[in-house]
Amino acid sequence: MPEPIPQAAIEAIVSAGRRMAERNWVPATAGNISVRLPGGRVAITRSGFHKAQLDAGAVMAVDMGGAPENPALRPSAETGLHCGAYRTFPDVGAVVHGHSIANTVLSRRAGDSIRLEGYELLKAFPGLATHEAAVEIPVLDNDQDIPRLQRAVEARWGNMAAPILPGYLIRGHGIYVWGPDMEAALARLEGLEFMLACELANLSINR
Amino acid sequence: MPEPIPQAAIEAIVSAGRRMAERNWVPATAGNISVRLPGGRVAITRSGFHKAQLDAGAVMAVDMGGAPENPALRPSAETGLHCGAYRTFPDVGAVVHGHSIANTVLSRRAGDSIRLEGYELLKAFPGLATHEAAVEIPVLDNDQDIPRLQRAVEARWGNMAAPILPGYLIRGHGIYVWGPDMEAALARLEGLEFMLACELANLSINR
Amino acid sequence: MPEPIPQAAIEAIVSAGRRMAERNWVPATAGNISVRLPGGRVAITRSGFHKAQLDAGAVMAVDMGGAPENPALRPSAETGLHCGAYRTFPDVGAVVHGHSIANTVLSRRAGDSIRLEGYELLKAFPGLATHEAAVEIPVLDNDQDIPRLQRAVEARWGNMAAPILPGYLIRGHGIYVWGPDMEAALARLEGLEFMLACELANLSINR
Amino acid sequence: MPEPIPQAAIEAIVSAGRRMAERNWVPATAGNISVRLPGGRVAITRSGFHKAQLDAGAVMAVDMGGAPENPALRPSAETGLHCGAYRTFPDVGAVVHGHSIANTVLSRRAGDSIRLEGYELLKAFPGLATHEAAVEIPVLDNDQDIPRLQRAVEARWGNMAAPILPGYLIRGHGIYVWGPDMEAALARLEGLEFMLACELANLSINR
Repeated sequence: MPEPIPQAAIEAIVSAGRRMAERNWVPATAGNISVRLPGGRVAITRSGFHKAQLDAGAVMAVDMGGAPENPALRPSAETGLHCGAYRTFPDVGAVVHGHSIANTVLSRRAGDSIRLEGYELLKAFPGLATHEAAVEIPVLDNDQDIPRLQRAVEARWGNMAAPILPGYLIRGHGIYVWGPDMEAALARLEGLEFMLACELANLSINR
Repeated sequence: MPEPIPQAAIEAIVSAGRRMAERNWVPATAGNISVRLPGGRVAITRSGFHKAQLDAGAVMAVDMGGAPENPALRPSAETGLHCGAYRTFPDVGAVVHGHSIANTVLSRRAGDSIRLEGYELLKAFPGLATHEAAVEIPVLDNDQDIPRLQRAVEARWGNMAAPILPGYLIRGHGIYVWGPDMEAALARLEGLEFMLACELANLSINR
Repeated sequence: MPEPIPQAAIEAIVSAGRRMAERNWVPATAGNISVRLPGGRVAITRSGFHKAQLDAGAVMAVDMGGAPENPALRPSAETGLHCGAYRTFPDVGAVVHGHSIANTVLSRRAGDSIRLEGYELLKAFPGLATHEAAVEIPVLDNDQDIPRLQRAVEARWGNMAAPILPGYLIRGHGIYVWGPDMEAALARLEGLEFMLACELANLSINR
Repeated sequence: MPEPIPQAAIEAIVSAGRRMAERNWVPATAGNISVRLPGGRVAITRSGFHKAQLDAGAVMAVDMGGAPENPALRPSAETGLHCGAYRTFPDVGAVVHGHSIANTVLSRRAGDSIRLEGYELLKAFPGLATHEAAVEIPVLDNDQDIPRLQRAVEARWGNMAAPILPGYLIRGHGIYVWGPDMEAALARLEGLEFMLACELANLSINR
């Protein structure tokens, strides 16, 4: 019988779902949220559950390859992307994925990255001490083959200078953001979504 | 004396009204919400009641033709559209109707459909396994003659390839969306409204 | 000693303030809310009180000319506009005044009216049975001389065909809307604000 | 051992954080909030605490030069700007700093000020009795050297005619607003943010 999921992990995920829902970042049953557990395990939202209304029954455990501990439960479709972040970056403790109007519209128009500069909020990202820095958020094409998508993500990470920005966009399919814990992941998500919303507003100015 | 409406049906409708109101999708007393009941009955919101503040007294029963079981109560003006969906699609368990800025503005500019493609959220709709599919949301002209409007809707369904998208727009008069139960109907509504909001934001970009 | 204000009137005003605040329609201490009381009296919000946080102490009584029953309390700066509606239209039971981005931006660009047509929500207004009607919302120039502004409003009403739309805009200074009771006034406010937000969104479309 | 912070000051700051968060004006851990205490002390939010979720442990005391009373605690990065307002204007009782889409986008495009005129809400600002006045909100370039930034702010105040507007923008880094107490500071913040949102909406109109 699999080990239970620690209560703190469940509460972090449930509460993250509510916060993301308050911003309308988890429409329909889209979005997913996970935390790293001890012993090479990951707690992640189950597929098809609305992230605004999570409870303990909506959270399940997978291994570092994304395989469910309880084969009767189906994890989020994008579990492989969460586990890819945990395997690649040992300090990552939580990963969040949401859809916003700004991240969807801008990713669809973007080439292979979106450049953000001149925002004080950039200071929140590792390696950026001032607002005069710029970040490039990687944008990758969507792909229903999640292992293939994860390989494309890792190839991008392989080509990026350190420190790597803790997030990326999938074209028309939202943002993935991570951090050492859930609070940091959510703060980084808020910061990136704020700056993307500013970019979209700026693009809509007409005079 | 008519059978009472099952409590679960009332709660589904009341709670759907609150969720739609939180998104400002039921302004004034607009919008309507229904569920299929056993025995050829439908529970639907009464006319003139604000959908943000529903209670058991705001919900009434009609037959599959839209006739009220209690003739002293007036059902939603668009009851005929809800019943038309229940009669045409035996698997439909709930129908929701709301007004959003995006669905109103885009339907007024549209021809006879709005095309959505390249959105991951399209995967939520029957028959669409990938984001590379596209859907055409039918747009019909508004009409105060509800039986005539329903015939126009059914004529469109008659001309559409299966699987038929579980929703349509009435020009300047909001969206109708359905599903096997209220949760599914609301999830589909959220998904369509999200994509329409993205379309509107994209049309507002100026450079 | 003046008669107390009926509890129902206080609750209607307090709750209207909260609903308008949830939509961000009463920024800073702007906006005002009133109800007609028996005996030629009006209950209205006191000047300088934030409408999101009203309580019984924030509501006072004035006569039909706007004079406070308790001279130590200062009524809303625009009390004269509320009383003007009550004197002119005997069926009016409540008046609400709020500021929205849409009503502010559109009124500043408008000539002497804003035309709304093709919206199903127009059906909520007296005399408009179908969506094919149009309404012209009067727009008047702002004026710190409230009696003079009220005379300008009454001159417009004198020139309008019946039924007169239950609302008007003051350029850069929000909307005034009334109805037979608070629920109707708030529903009409929601409907007009929804349609104005649609107009603004439509004007922002770029392709 | 330093004097405790009065409970009223803590509650004012905690509740201001919640109100600003409801408007999405304190994304990630950005923003800061302070009140003047008796005896030359200032209570201010600690660095790195999310302003939506403040409690007594998130509030600390500094002196009028910004030095922490408890050297183990780190005050907000912009403490120097708050203390600068308290030193320069003896009547200031509270200072709030937030980031909004409007204030970020508009400050980045602005020269050294943003002009607001024709808004009724301008009446809320000292020295402006009518809507026909105009205000110029100073815009200063961002600077990680806070003492240098505060000197630039004071140089602007030195060049402005009285009464000085109780606020300024830092390019890409939000707004600073103050008032005699927290309620007044928040009301002025709401008013300025409302007008900036109107300006942004007006710039996005395309026809």
